[in-house]
Amino acid sequence: MCGVRTMGSSSILIKNVFFDGKITNIYIEDDKIVEIGGPKVEAEAVIDGRDKAAIPSFFNAHTHAAMTLFRGYGDDLPLQEWLETKIWPTEAKLTEEDVYVGAKLACLEMIKSGTTFFNDMYWHLRGSLRAVDEAGIRAALSSVVIDLFNPEKAEEQKKMVKEEFEKYKDFSERIQIVLGPHAIYTVSKETLEWTAEFAEKNNLLIHFHLSETKKEVDDCIKQYGKRPVEYLDDIGFLSERFIACHSVWLSEREIELLAKNDVTVVNNPTSNMKLSVGDYFKYQDLKKAGLNICLGTDGCASNNSLDMFGEMKFAALLQKFGANNPTEISAKEVFDLATINGAKAFRVDAGVIREEKKADLLLVDLKRPEMTPLHDLTSNIVYSANAYCVDTTICDGKILMQNRKVEWENEIIENAEKVAQDLVRR
Amino acid sequence: MCGVRTMGSSSILIKNVFFDGKITNIYIEDDKIVEIGGPKVEAEAVIDGRDKAAIPSFFNAHTHAAMTLFRGYGDDLPLQEWLETKIWPTEAKLTEEDVYVGAKLACLEMIKSGTTFFNDMYWHLRGSLRAVDEAGIRAALSSVVIDLFNPEKAEEQKKMVKEEFEKYKDFSERIQIVLGPHAIYTVSKETLEWTAEFAEKNNLLIHFHLSETKKEVDDCIKQYGKRPVEYLDDIGFLSERFIACHSVWLSEREIELLAKNDVTVVNNPTSNMKLSVGDYFKYQDLKKAGLNICLGTDGCASNNSLDMFGEMKFAALLQKFGANNPTEISAKEVFDLATINGAKAFRVDAGVIREEKKADLLLVDLKRPEMTPLHDLTSNIVYSANAYCVDTTICDGKILMQNRKVEWENEIIENAEKVAQDLVRR
Repeated sequence: MCGVRTMGSSSILIKNVFFDGKITNIYIEDDKIVEIGGPKVEAEAVIDGRDKAAIPSFFNAHTHAAMTLFRGYGDDLPLQEWLETKIWPTEAKLTEEDVYVGAKLACLEMIKSGTTFFNDMYWHLRGSLRAVDEAGIRAALSSVVIDLFNPEKAEEQKKMVKEEFEKYKDFSERIQIVLGPHAIYTVSKETLEWTAEFAEKNNLLIHFHLSETKKEVDDCIKQYGKRPVEYLDDIGFLSERFIACHSVWLSEREIELLAKNDVTVVNNPTSNMKLSVGDYFKYQDLKKAGLNICLGTDGCASNNSLDMFGEMKFAALLQKFGANNPTEISAKEVFDLATINGAKAFRVDAGVIREEKKADLLLVDLKRPEMTPLHDLTSNIVYSANAYCVDTTICDGKILMQNRKVEWENEIIENAEKVAQDLVRR
Repeated sequence: MCGVRTMGSSSILIKNVFFDGKITNIYIEDDKIVEIGGPKVEAEAVIDGRDKAAIPSFFNAHTHAAMTLFRGYGDDLPLQEWLETKIWPTEAKLTEEDVYVGAKLACLEMIKSGTTFFNDMYWHLRGSLRAVDEAGIRAALSSVVIDLFNPEKAEEQKKMVKEEFEKYKDFSERIQIVLGPHAIYTVSKETLEWTAEFAEKNNLLIHFHLSETKKEVDDCIKQYGKRPVEYLDDIGFLSERFIACHSVWLSEREIELLAKNDVTVVNNPTSNMKLSVGDYFKYQDLKKAGLNICLGTDGCASNNSLDMFGEMKFAALLQKFGANNPTEISAKEVFDLATINGAKAFRVDAGVIREEKKADLLLVDLKRPEMTPLHDLTSNIVYSANAYCVDTTICDGKILMQNRKVEWENEIIENAEKVAQDLVRR
């Protein structure tokens, strides 16, 4: 059963909603915002916007959605022990159906917390594809590519990537296939070169973990005599298609190289804190270099939530704390990381509420204690709101949640609980 | 109109609730938990506990409740500009009625996010008293004492403290009057000495800002030739009644002195990050010294939320990040900071669900995506839950919220919006 189809409607009128500092109407037709503040008085679906604010929905620029199944599984352990005794052995048992269920739970959590796009890297791609398609949101999906410097494994992985791309490139207008080489310490130079070529040929984005830990940088210097971004630049891996995640440990020279190549960088503050990566994301340096910067939650094993409200607050506060400067970043800038910057990076014509843009937006309940008083909507959204404040989630012109209810929520929650418990006992 | 009285009931049976790893019943009579897992089958109020977990409610150990009125007012400004152009001029205009409304909004936000006790320091004490009394939660309330080293002002302040104590000491069983000297840089040695004596004579707690910034420590060394805790120890200010908030900049010797005097220390991670105090709270050092450690949100001007779920996540993650160690603190330890440790510090016989304890507890909705799967309830509560997960809030044996509804919520939200807008325009 799929909420998006049954609740779908080809025109929506949101009446008397707070937007851009005033009360107005927003009219949506098919997948687009057609008219703001216009004379339209009728539509197939009419939403009472009173006591609500319209804001663009969020773009979660780096996650591993199906890892919802691992939420709270082995927290607070040393990193290596956690990976070796908890995550890796359990991941090895995952099936496509498990991934479908985990990703669908992730979609539910995202819809309920106002996110309508996520950038994903995980196993069993088809499981995530099915989940996103049914849930009605958008995603950039990639299979994890790890060859462990083994040429045979590399061939298998390339074959898989090519096959999946051919098979799924037109699966849904809301889903783009991207490439997911994991990191420099798990993927060979040859596979990275091949990935860059394949991406260029097919105009695909590349989703990558870059300079998350100091160890990664130190090992790279030891192995290649240069830092990770220098290594990637030398092999021709950097381009405007490159989405670099975490990217905490960057030198000035590396930031210049990233900027020269017009890459996108994704900040993952919660995960960086929970996994103790040892430094904070250099937002101001990256911004000054002109880079497009997005925001992502990472997967539920290292967050443990997909809530972009929490992520925005962590992003703002870690920036201020790290730089020892309360003016280091503003609520508005953080909000942009979570919306318009994500839309730009992932080539979705949304991230802002404007006529002719895709109708990806939220109605936020203003009659909540944490949203009162309304001195500054953006400040309330970034520093005080939580997922509960989202009343209505619209993606691609379809109402996915209204009055905080998603049609299929109980079904997936029950199913995910069963699958997750079975998975760790299997 | 007051929810606590109309919804009150002298016996409550929570049936089939998840507690301590199993499904059980919890029976409450008057203000106490009387029976867990017993044969009781009837009560004046019966709550269906299915798909819910019972957990103790939260203790917010440091806040300025009525500052909800300033939520989002002048964020992201340099500290001094923010205080001088926004907060101080507006605070000067506050009336008792404003404080009542602001504190009542705070009580609502706390009830909706599972907090049933807060430790407060603010102006117009009677406003907060009325709000807490009506809202049905618990609080330790103090007037801010600031004499700015002026003997005349000091006399006025002492007179106010004595009068308020006499007038309000028996106002409500749920409210304790405590003393609120602001900090060493705003209160004279003489007033601090007088406060310590008055506290000892009347067995009152002292709520204090201690070593929040490096400037405070540097100025203290310059003025007194010693660090803040050394100074306070020398004037006999430290005792088991002392509640030290923030306390980020402590030397080893100061931690020893705090431990020797059996003080309570309150961690305020979100505020410390937002105001960029420059270092993190040394949880492990304070814990090893044997100190009781609590958790608090600080006021809405520097957080901007009173949500202890958010505060727990910030506490855990800043600790891991600051110490560069993912095992630095566990979810269980953070949960204790927010519950049992607060109960201990503020002499409330709650903070844990056990027979004969005060009936201060929450029912948390387990059928939420962020609470699924249930590998580890405490981990889900600390790292993934948000205020929306609280379905029912019980304090002192009274149901303050059920099915996420508080009877008087719309009234106070509308009122607070009006008061806050009027206040900044007044």
